[in-house]
Amino acid sequence: MSRLTLGIGALVLLASCSPTASSDPPRDMAAEVASLSEAAIAYHAAAAAKDAATVVASYDWDAVMVPPNESLVEGITEVQDYRFGFISTPGVSLDFELLRVEVSENGDMGWTLAEGDITIEQDGAEPGQDLVRDFHVWSRQPDGRWTVIVDIWNSGMPTG
Amino acid sequence: MSRLTLGIGALVLLASCSPTASSDPPRDMAAEVASLSEAAIAYHAAAAAKDAATVVASYDWDAVMVPPNESLVEGITEVQDYRFGFISTPGVSLDFELLRVEVSENGDMGWTLAEGDITIEQDGAEPGQDLVRDFHVWSRQPDGRWTVIVDIWNSGMPTG
Repeated sequence: MSRLTLGIGALVLLASCSPTASSDPPRDMAAEVASLSEAAIAYHAAAAAKDAATVVASYDWDAVMVPPNESLVEGITEVQDYRFGFISTPGVSLDFELLRVEVSENGDMGWTLAEGDITIEQDGAEPGQDLVRDFHVWSRQPDGRWTVIVDIWNSGMPTG
Repeated sequence: MSRLTLGIGALVLLASCSPTASSDPPRDMAAEVASLSEAAIAYHAAAAAKDAATVVASYDWDAVMVPPNESLVEGITEVQDYRFGFISTPGVSLDFELLRVEVSENGDMGWTLAEGDITIEQDGAEPGQDLVRDFHVWSRQPDGRWTVIVDIWNSGMPTG
């Protein structure tokens, strides 16, 4: 619940002070989805730019990351210590597309699903390719900022 | 700003004006989390029992599944047609543990993270082992039932 909405709700209650006084006004869900989409696009832009500080600053203090074939990464200290492969591996370039975005009724929780084309330049060989599905749950902070609370991904490339 | 805080604020306002105007009562978040935990445990029990009908009935009409190394599975018809490996592969047994459960302020969205030990019996060989991290986002239906809207998983076993 944002402070803005509480303010509007209080105004509605005060203005009516009658048997018809209403509950919270409906949220502008399109604006909530746009706000979360913007956060997800900013995250992927930072990842593509290998801007580790911005990527790490996107996470909630209580975030959990679920990297394939590695242990869970729990809490912001472990996130700060985590080796993001797309940042630390030389020759990697990323191109993300946001596939789906949903936000809870109250605008306090949301999720985003994106697909990323990964190209890995290799000396004297054809570039390697991977397809990553990058899924985030986000928490809305009191100041309106979205932070990543869950980060789980896997590869969409066939095995073998 | 929590729903509880809004509730107290609204009560103060209401006490000073109409006795009949109402706002939403504060939600019992512990009860919401317990309700979602129960849904997640029921899903995993159905999976362990290879009860495909109950597993499939857990999904939302608009669900998206993100299986590693396979295409996205989008919408309930594709979910119904999906080959769940843990159901169709002979000799597989599952043992899940629920690690984290969170519910949105309004109780309409939530997520669960579980780990599953997978054992695969093989003729004349040591049983195979895998560790799956099973992540779901859930939507609350008008009747109170939780349905899976996102299902993404990966393996926690080291590669190579």
